[in-house]
Amino acid sequence: MRNLDENTITDAVLARHEHVGNARLTEIAGSLVRHLHAFAREVNLTESEWEQGIRFLTDVGHMTDEKRQEFILLSDTLGLSTLVVAMANRKPAGCTEATVFGPFFVEGAPEYENGADVANGATGVPCFVSGKIRGLYGEPVPNARIEVWQADADGLYDVQYPDDGEHRGRGVLHSRADGSYHFRSIVGEPYPIPHDGPVGRMLDALGRHPWRPAHLHFMITAPGYERLVTHVFREGDPYLDSDAVFGVRSSLIAPWLQHEAGVAPDGTRMATPFYTLEFDFVLNRAAL
Amino acid sequence: MRNLDENTITDAVLARHEHVGNARLTEIAGSLVRHLHAFAREVNLTESEWEQGIRFLTDVGHMTDEKRQEFILLSDTLGLSTLVVAMANRKPAGCTEATVFGPFFVEGAPEYENGADVANGATGVPCFVSGKIRGLYGEPVPNARIEVWQADADGLYDVQYPDDGEHRGRGVLHSRADGSYHFRSIVGEPYPIPHDGPVGRMLDALGRHPWRPAHLHFMITAPGYERLVTHVFREGDPYLDSDAVFGVRSSLIAPWLQHEAGVAPDGTRMATPFYTLEFDFVLNRAAL
Repeated sequence: MRNLDENTITDAVLARHEHVGNARLTEIAGSLVRHLHAFAREVNLTESEWEQGIRFLTDVGHMTDEKRQEFILLSDTLGLSTLVVAMANRKPAGCTEATVFGPFFVEGAPEYENGADVANGATGVPCFVSGKIRGLYGEPVPNARIEVWQADADGLYDVQYPDDGEHRGRGVLHSRADGSYHFRSIVGEPYPIPHDGPVGRMLDALGRHPWRPAHLHFMITAPGYERLVTHVFREGDPYLDSDAVFGVRSSLIAPWLQHEAGVAPDGTRMATPFYTLEFDFVLNRAAL
Repeated sequence: MRNLDENTITDAVLARHEHVGNARLTEIAGSLVRHLHAFAREVNLTESEWEQGIRFLTDVGHMTDEKRQEFILLSDTLGLSTLVVAMANRKPAGCTEATVFGPFFVEGAPEYENGADVANGATGVPCFVSGKIRGLYGEPVPNARIEVWQADADGLYDVQYPDDGEHRGRGVLHSRADGSYHFRSIVGEPYPIPHDGPVGRMLDALGRHPWRPAHLHFMITAPGYERLVTHVFREGDPYLDSDAVFGVRSSLIAPWLQHEAGVAPDGTRMATPFYTLEFDFVLNRAAL
């Protein structure tokens, strides 16, 4: 402990954790220290680069508040979020794949009946969304809780506007007895993740753009089934192959079909063109 | 890019950095991503543990301000600072070893003549410090800039008290023609690093104490020589083998000798017991 150098420091830190009560914490802290040190050793991190790293993390911390989570953006843009989601969602073939949660979910979104317009005033071209919730053996899942959220035509979520107490482009529905659901909303558009902070500067320095392909978020929960957090992506989007947060999966891309003015699938008479999106979800059984 | 899973995500992130202009940045970002992902994979990091990690970093960011650098404390307590310092200071045998900078250095400390009392009112038992600054071939280094800083008898640095415009226990001196220096200060005592924040909670959860052995900080600069940032540790301190920030080196431990009331080495008549510390520094030549 008295002559730690670049070769002995790692074992010295690990030795300090030998008497921890929490075995899982010891495991995580030990692995973190070994990989953090291996990184610094591999690049021969200089004192000035270390200082820049401390400054960067300080900036990320100071950018983060109740409405802006810059550390989640950092995890998302470094691919860590996708990795953790993938490891936590090793599902049997046939189940709908999960993807990143993102920083824009909000608790307490309003509950709607099937057929309602969850846009609630969010700007965008109308889109009628429908589909079924099923289990792995094809069984319909009735009364599943379906939370949806999305950005508007300007690529912004309601929480990115000054708060007026209204939820726009988000809501909670429940599947019917046959597992079906349907609601009205707006067409998603590609948008840049918030990039006026340190993560935006990092992307810029790395020659990376901040754009995400258009998508609609779903979180579906039902008793006896594993919670599913996922997106449906819009086929043809120019950012499907370069999502800033690495969330795209082929199985989650679907056609959002454009229609002339006329009668929507739910019988609504539309005086302007509109879109439809049909997407079925297959839930995994909950672990016993 | 459309079907990233736990096995393909890492290469997908690295591929995004291929067109970066800055080769060093690409190297650092690539290594960081690989090691970060390897860590998450090795411990099979769960979504809930990832959330706890995001919350921890958020807390560290919010604890950090102009007077408190919680990210440096985190780096210090994980041994990263010692590793970076060791790699940046591979000196020839015979040179004084470097150790961690710590978070308590302040620019603009007052300049003193040799013999002055840099304590400037800081509480503690008087200590007379002296020694020589030499080069690797034994040559004296005249007019070296010597910055010293230390905690008081209560284990606190001046910057940890409400600011009254005074510097206490820190100052700048210059070596004389023969390389010698001497000043009066106080005896260092062991102290806990600030542990009322997230890093303190982390140490607690890991079963680690926050204490550092007593030490006196030195930063020595002279034209033609490599800057030396180091401590002198107090022989016999109970925390020499468990420094919370892994900074101790045997070669930096010295006896701080206690003396009865009487005449100090610089001729001062002391009515109470006092200490002396003698320590010589050997500077490395600057890289050409």
